Amino acid sequence: MREKCGVYGGIHENIALELKRGLFSLQHRGQESCGISVVENGTLKTIKNMGLVRDVLKDEKMLSIKSEMGIGHVRYSTAGSSEIINAQPLELTYKGSKVAVAHNGNLEKQDEMLKKIEDKGEIFITDTDTEILLHKLVNHFKSPPIEWDPIQMAEVLFEVKGAFSLLFLFEDKVVAVRDPHGYRPLWIRKDKNSTLFSSEDSAFPLGGKLMEMEPGSVAVARKDDFIYKRLVNVKASQCVFECIYFSRPDSHTFGKSVYDLRQKFGEKCAEENPVEGDLIIPVMDSGLLAAIGFSKVSGIPLEPALVRNPWIGRTFIEPTGRSSAVKMKLSVVSNVLKGKRVVLVDDSIVRGTTAKRIVELVRKAKPSEIHFRVASPPVLSECFWGIDIPDRTSLIARQGIEKAKEDLKVDSLKYLSLEGMCEVLGGCDDFCFRCFTRGDVME
Amino acid sequence: MREKCGVYGGIHENIALELKRGLFSLQHRGQESCGISVVENGTLKTIKNMGLVRDVLKDEKMLSIKSEMGIGHVRYSTAGSSEIINAQPLELTYKGSKVAVAHNGNLEKQDEMLKKIEDKGEIFITDTDTEILLHKLVNHFKSPPIEWDPIQMAEVLFEVKGAFSLLFLFEDKVVAVRDPHGYRPLWIRKDKNSTLFSSEDSAFPLGGKLMEMEPGSVAVARKDDFIYKRLVNVKASQCVFECIYFSRPDSHTFGKSVYDLRQKFGEKCAEENPVEGDLIIPVMDSGLLAAIGFSKVSGIPLEPALVRNPWIGRTFIEPTGRSSAVKMKLSVVSNVLKGKRVVLVDDSIVRGTTAKRIVELVRKAKPSEIHFRVASPPVLSECFWGIDIPDRTSLIARQGIEKAKEDLKVDSLKYLSLEGMCEVLGGCDDFCFRCFTRGDVME
Amino acid sequence: MREKCGVYGGIHENIALELKRGLFSLQHRGQESCGISVVENGTLKTIKNMGLVRDVLKDEKMLSIKSEMGIGHVRYSTAGSSEIINAQPLELTYKGSKVAVAHNGNLEKQDEMLKKIEDKGEIFITDTDTEILLHKLVNHFKSPPIEWDPIQMAEVLFEVKGAFSLLFLFEDKVVAVRDPHGYRPLWIRKDKNSTLFSSEDSAFPLGGKLMEMEPGSVAVARKDDFIYKRLVNVKASQCVFECIYFSRPDSHTFGKSVYDLRQKFGEKCAEENPVEGDLIIPVMDSGLLAAIGFSKVSGIPLEPALVRNPWIGRTFIEPTGRSSAVKMKLSVVSNVLKGKRVVLVDDSIVRGTTAKRIVELVRKAKPSEIHFRVASPPVLSECFWGIDIPDRTSLIARQGIEKAKEDLKVDSLKYLSLEGMCEVLGGCDDFCFRCFTRGDVME
Amino acid sequence: MREKCGVYGGIHENIALELKRGLFSLQHRGQESCGISVVENGTLKTIKNMGLVRDVLKDEKMLSIKSEMGIGHVRYSTAGSSEIINAQPLELTYKGSKVAVAHNGNLEKQDEMLKKIEDKGEIFITDTDTEILLHKLVNHFKSPPIEWDPIQMAEVLFEVKGAFSLLFLFEDKVVAVRDPHGYRPLWIRKDKNSTLFSSEDSAFPLGGKLMEMEPGSVAVARKDDFIYKRLVNVKASQCVFECIYFSRPDSHTFGKSVYDLRQKFGEKCAEENPVEGDLIIPVMDSGLLAAIGFSKVSGIPLEPALVRNPWIGRTFIEPTGRSSAVKMKLSVVSNVLKGKRVVLVDDSIVRGTTAKRIVELVRKAKPSEIHFRVASPPVLSECFWGIDIPDRTSLIARQGIEKAKEDLKVDSLKYLSLEGMCEVLGGCDDFCFRCFTRGDVME
Repeated sequence: MREKCGVYGGIHENIALELKRGLFSLQHRGQESCGISVVENGTLKTIKNMGLVRDVLKDEKMLSIKSEMGIGHVRYSTAGSSEIINAQPLELTYKGSKVAVAHNGNLEKQDEMLKKIEDKGEIFITDTDTEILLHKLVNHFKSPPIEWDPIQMAEVLFEVKGAFSLLFLFEDKVVAVRDPHGYRPLWIRKDKNSTLFSSEDSAFPLGGKLMEMEPGSVAVARKDDFIYKRLVNVKASQCVFECIYFSRPDSHTFGKSVYDLRQKFGEKCAEENPVEGDLIIPVMDSGLLAAIGFSKVSGIPLEPALVRNPWIGRTFIEPTGRSSAVKMKLSVVSNVLKGKRVVLVDDSIVRGTTAKRIVELVRKAKPSEIHFRVASPPVLSECFWGIDIPDRTSLIARQGIEKAKEDLKVDSLKYLSLEGMCEVLGGCDDFCFRCFTRGDVME
Repeated sequence: MREKCGVYGGIHENIALELKRGLFSLQHRGQESCGISVVENGTLKTIKNMGLVRDVLKDEKMLSIKSEMGIGHVRYSTAGSSEIINAQPLELTYKGSKVAVAHNGNLEKQDEMLKKIEDKGEIFITDTDTEILLHKLVNHFKSPPIEWDPIQMAEVLFEVKGAFSLLFLFEDKVVAVRDPHGYRPLWIRKDKNSTLFSSEDSAFPLGGKLMEMEPGSVAVARKDDFIYKRLVNVKASQCVFECIYFSRPDSHTFGKSVYDLRQKFGEKCAEENPVEGDLIIPVMDSGLLAAIGFSKVSGIPLEPALVRNPWIGRTFIEPTGRSSAVKMKLSVVSNVLKGKRVVLVDDSIVRGTTAKRIVELVRKAKPSEIHFRVASPPVLSECFWGIDIPDRTSLIARQGIEKAKEDLKVDSLKYLSLEGMCEVLGGCDDFCFRCFTRGDVME
Repeated sequence: MREKCGVYGGIHENIALELKRGLFSLQHRGQESCGISVVENGTLKTIKNMGLVRDVLKDEKMLSIKSEMGIGHVRYSTAGSSEIINAQPLELTYKGSKVAVAHNGNLEKQDEMLKKIEDKGEIFITDTDTEILLHKLVNHFKSPPIEWDPIQMAEVLFEVKGAFSLLFLFEDKVVAVRDPHGYRPLWIRKDKNSTLFSSEDSAFPLGGKLMEMEPGSVAVARKDDFIYKRLVNVKASQCVFECIYFSRPDSHTFGKSVYDLRQKFGEKCAEENPVEGDLIIPVMDSGLLAAIGFSKVSGIPLEPALVRNPWIGRTFIEPTGRSSAVKMKLSVVSNVLKGKRVVLVDDSIVRGTTAKRIVELVRKAKPSEIHFRVASPPVLSECFWGIDIPDRTSLIARQGIEKAKEDLKVDSLKYLSLEGMCEVLGGCDDFCFRCFTRGDVME
Repeated sequence: MREKCGVYGGIHENIALELKRGLFSLQHRGQESCGISVVENGTLKTIKNMGLVRDVLKDEKMLSIKSEMGIGHVRYSTAGSSEIINAQPLELTYKGSKVAVAHNGNLEKQDEMLKKIEDKGEIFITDTDTEILLHKLVNHFKSPPIEWDPIQMAEVLFEVKGAFSLLFLFEDKVVAVRDPHGYRPLWIRKDKNSTLFSSEDSAFPLGGKLMEMEPGSVAVARKDDFIYKRLVNVKASQCVFECIYFSRPDSHTFGKSVYDLRQKFGEKCAEENPVEGDLIIPVMDSGLLAAIGFSKVSGIPLEPALVRNPWIGRTFIEPTGRSSAVKMKLSVVSNVLKGKRVVLVDDSIVRGTTAKRIVELVRKAKPSEIHFRVASPPVLSECFWGIDIPDRTSLIARQGIEKAKEDLKVDSLKYLSLEGMCEVLGGCDDFCFRCFTRGDVME
């Protein structure tokens, strides 16, 4: 599973450096491209490119920007192909004024919306669904962005179905909008000198007053003014995968400690799926907390015997082919495993490709048994709201757990149940968990 | 005066490398950003960035592209600010198909057109007028690009006023369009294996059959098909500055040898503006041919005593300020000038900033007199069709030649007359020379 | 504490890519500069620069090298300042032949040796002690490197006191030498097509026959020949810090599983230093295994509530100063700690700077108590053999543990005892642990 | 023929930026690598790498250096292969003090000297003959560099045969030394705040008091002290190729205006080698002045019909092979040449490879005749003092002019005579012109 996007922005005396700092902290949400838009001397400008924050937003450049207002974005493509034109923030010029937007999430029924707009003869320069939102807004206001009323903006956007946590930068303000179902998180931090927005609260500087924006709400930050308003109050549909995998463990996404949830998913999984084992190996780095929880309940000791090499980049050429990339990134402490009944614990399995390679690696250390435990339910359907889940035929669990077990070549394969997950969450009413259901038709 | 854009493209067995080669040869037309679009495995994709051809279109990348069809662009911004979003080719996705466009030239009445389109609620992602053309086309066809008829495309574009030499890349063809007035040049080269388009003929490989596209014409290159058609035949309005400064001397822009014209502008300038001088100094590199012509007619010997440093980049930080950049790039062979009556010859003067610094530099070598001769008429008006002539108040000649002479601190300042220029060109009927007229209203 | 160097090399059908792969796996031993020397068409050549493996040894470059013999190096400066001239491998030309050397370790009495050599009028181009070894060898052989006998080479080198695991590349062979005390590790891997050397066994490809070179041994790999010989057998003095911190956990440095040792150091530390606590926080990433061991013995649950951001580079500019770098890299899951008795477990403390900042960070989460446990003894002396331990006055433990505790502002501070460490190691006879003694004079 | 090296240095309130400026102006003397050494806070440090000044000496880096004393170097390898280890300045550490050296020129009998030093058991880290000089100095002084007496240094260096214009940087001074024969140029510029040294006077800022260092002289610049002394006064042997090709035309190398000399070489060549021609084509850029001189005397008009593309880098990959690189860089204005008797004028021909390709290119424009005139004598021998003249068998003139003419496929090929060259120079007594003689043995 690939990460999605992260947004950061606000009003700050040195916004360029603050955006860089914030995007650094959100880099786990997207490593493909990144960028910032700032208002400098009354003019909106954008710096963006393919690459990591440290390469695109160079210190010298950041230091040279004198600005107090801006937004930023890190991106891993969900919709839209991987080209520079799709990097965000996306700028729009309309009737002499500019607006920039940074978007986390995916719209529903994009093709339909696209068709409707294109049928009117309007055009698309990027491959991103974000551009659809700009069309919507322009079609409504037909005036320079500077004149758009933020409340009305939100109302227009709320007619669109899908996931969107959005930051808009105008020449005089930053506007944040979270969709009515609240698929993606969005946070506000205020202190006496600054107002900041972020996909995750852990990206904020320490201190300040924090508040998670409610689904269907809008916030407006101006240099000396701040407005927050919830416009819509419908049943939320917050993405449970944020809790399972996307968010940093030190975040409090959807009002819950991600750190606590992940341990408890592991604990619950252990309760539901007891196993005779000698040691528990977390699939690093993301499976560590689930493995700790599993270990606590099962009493099987934790052994972090899968080691990651943090220095490898995303690609590595080898004459012997691509599959060795995983071997490069992961290695196994063999002596610990030999002859042991090993329990691998991961937060989730999607296609199973990496899981398969890990089992292969572990097998080489000659354990007597390998059991796989997954601290979330089987992924059975693709996602329409911004998670890069491949088409359903490639989802390993879709063929049935027994068949998946054989595919992975493990002695047992067990998942946390949907009920178990919901119990940990304190109920699933406010969550979207469609990917864990055999949802063949979109409701 | 800043250069504008250059386009290159066509059908070739190894189009990526051929685009790089061609854009290298057109790099004098734009050094700010560059890019190419190619069709690879039936899919259109674009590589572009800020920077020179050698930095953006790396060999390894070019070698890895397997494509036989593509277009490329080098850009110096005329309309549109200097941001990556404005780099070309510009890609459009519409109803599931893509088209990319590379544009040399500027549209007239952009604000008006923009307003009209924006009033319908359509939006602009880039700051370029090229996007206006895409709106026009989409509004007309309302079908996927792949279905657009090239002849109809040209007809739609010909309704737009302004300068445009355009290359379009579709999944199955390259289409070239030159506006009815032919402001900017556009060439075709055919041999049995390839069809290429270029802003200047000198960028083509040697050999092949060359043809300058006529104003108001359209050409379509497919893998095994080629169509050329002139659709409109009105009075041409070809930019005389292409002959004076933009095009490479080895080009044959507008059917004329640029090399010959520049020498003859210098000769005519000498006839019209005799001067008692000891030596002629060309303002390198662009003034050399004019200076040779001036020298031939006047009998005053040529002395290339202004030396350029080709290794300096576009900017150079010095603690003592920005003006030293010129001093870094140019130096003077002082002993040649001392006590002599010096005649500086340049192809043109626009704002006069560089000319002023050169005179200052030359003055330090203590010549007895400095005369300045300009092998083109005084620039009196801004340009609407793609030349970056600053707003008219900064044009040095607009205040009167006597005042300009004082500004430059030279003993005499003379220009080629409009009549003289037209005589060299064999008549100005087919040329646009508005910038040399006090054209306060646009016709 | 900073990492030191790593070496990799040997004979392999595609040595350039194999060196890159191996150095990637040793990148934790040095991130300042790196390089490789290979023999291509009979000629020895070196590619090196400041920076990480992924930046210095680009794939295109590696793919273009046709070579079957080479050595590589990753470096964090211990001796020698941080300049490109000090990057390794270091090449020597002597009487028309070349040799390149990659060195892990530091020599003793460098100043003395330097003086002796300089007194003879010989010069040094680099700041590295490696150059001293080259002087030694040349002074002995006074013949082209190609003629040097590897056994004699080792004998000459063994007269030098200090730490050196060395790889030499000649035009016809690779020679590996490990100093008589075996301060630094060095491994051999053989299969039927290749012979490889590495600082750590975990960097090798899977499979093959592995052997740790004994202290005082030499190995010679030629295309179809392999020699291994132990020349000296004295009391070993292997660096215990390799086990505590430097080596990867999946390595078997000095014949021991690093993974096992680290857990057991943690266990022993827990036995020796019981504490009433609610949770154990590993100081990530290096303290995890010690923390697991501590948790097992103490029964206090593990909570990885210190989270690292892997995307931050080595430096981060902030207007508010340098200390925030730590805050950028580490964050705390506050809700887990509030009101709790927290036990921080780390593998070692040297100067205490980072430890101090971590305690500060943790304190902000308002735990009721903070206890610090260190799974190695107090560092009391600097190191002469290749570990970047700052001068002794900056060692936090040197002022006494009580004072150190106050400095760190923790409720208790306890270390693993020297005896405890030696017990885990199965005896300290073969180890160097001088840094844990108040060794004011060098034996 | 390839350029060699350039040196720049001295005392200046902002020496880092001044070095960058100076090296920019000397970039024509070497584009392979460059570097600077400066004294900052009493410590000597060096920044160097492969590449151009603009890439290696980044503005941010230069701006961050606070230093008043330094030296710099641009390099095209003559001796020493093209590796980073050979980039200059070269730093030496000896008995705790440092010295850096920048060298223009080549030593004679390097192998002999090398052998002598190596026989004593001393070693070489770089492939450069500059390292030999450091050995010499150290062997003499056997004390820390800081104590070396500059006059004695020069005396020691003057025992070495060969070409060396040297700048040394000590922690307290810059020392400049020019060899007794003065093969390579070296200049001093003084004003009340700064003392600067440069290979060419044209690289200095305007103004100041200029003086060319005499052969066999030494200069010492300290913050408030300056010494200049000529120690040896023997027959000079200044490299005539500096006047013909290497130096910038605005320099006054060896007391002569390079600009004047080049024109006069062309004039003399025309006197000696009359030709019936319709037009003279300078081989740009370096042949322009010779061509102007030739045109003046012959009365044949100048036509700069060979056009260079300044944007091409040093290499260009083409599927059709390497020879097209020349075609990329040069193009021909064909219509000017058709049916004409063309006279190509160049400053010199060494191997003739480029000349051959130019003739080929020109031939395609279908001139009726092509005559080649060279404004210097035939190159018959290689050079031992720093010019990259390939081994003698590849020198086109060595096979006889008639055969060379056939090789080039021209209708006539004539050179300036040695006598003619000497006449222009006002006598050859103080010049080295060995490459123009059939000097099979070195005197």
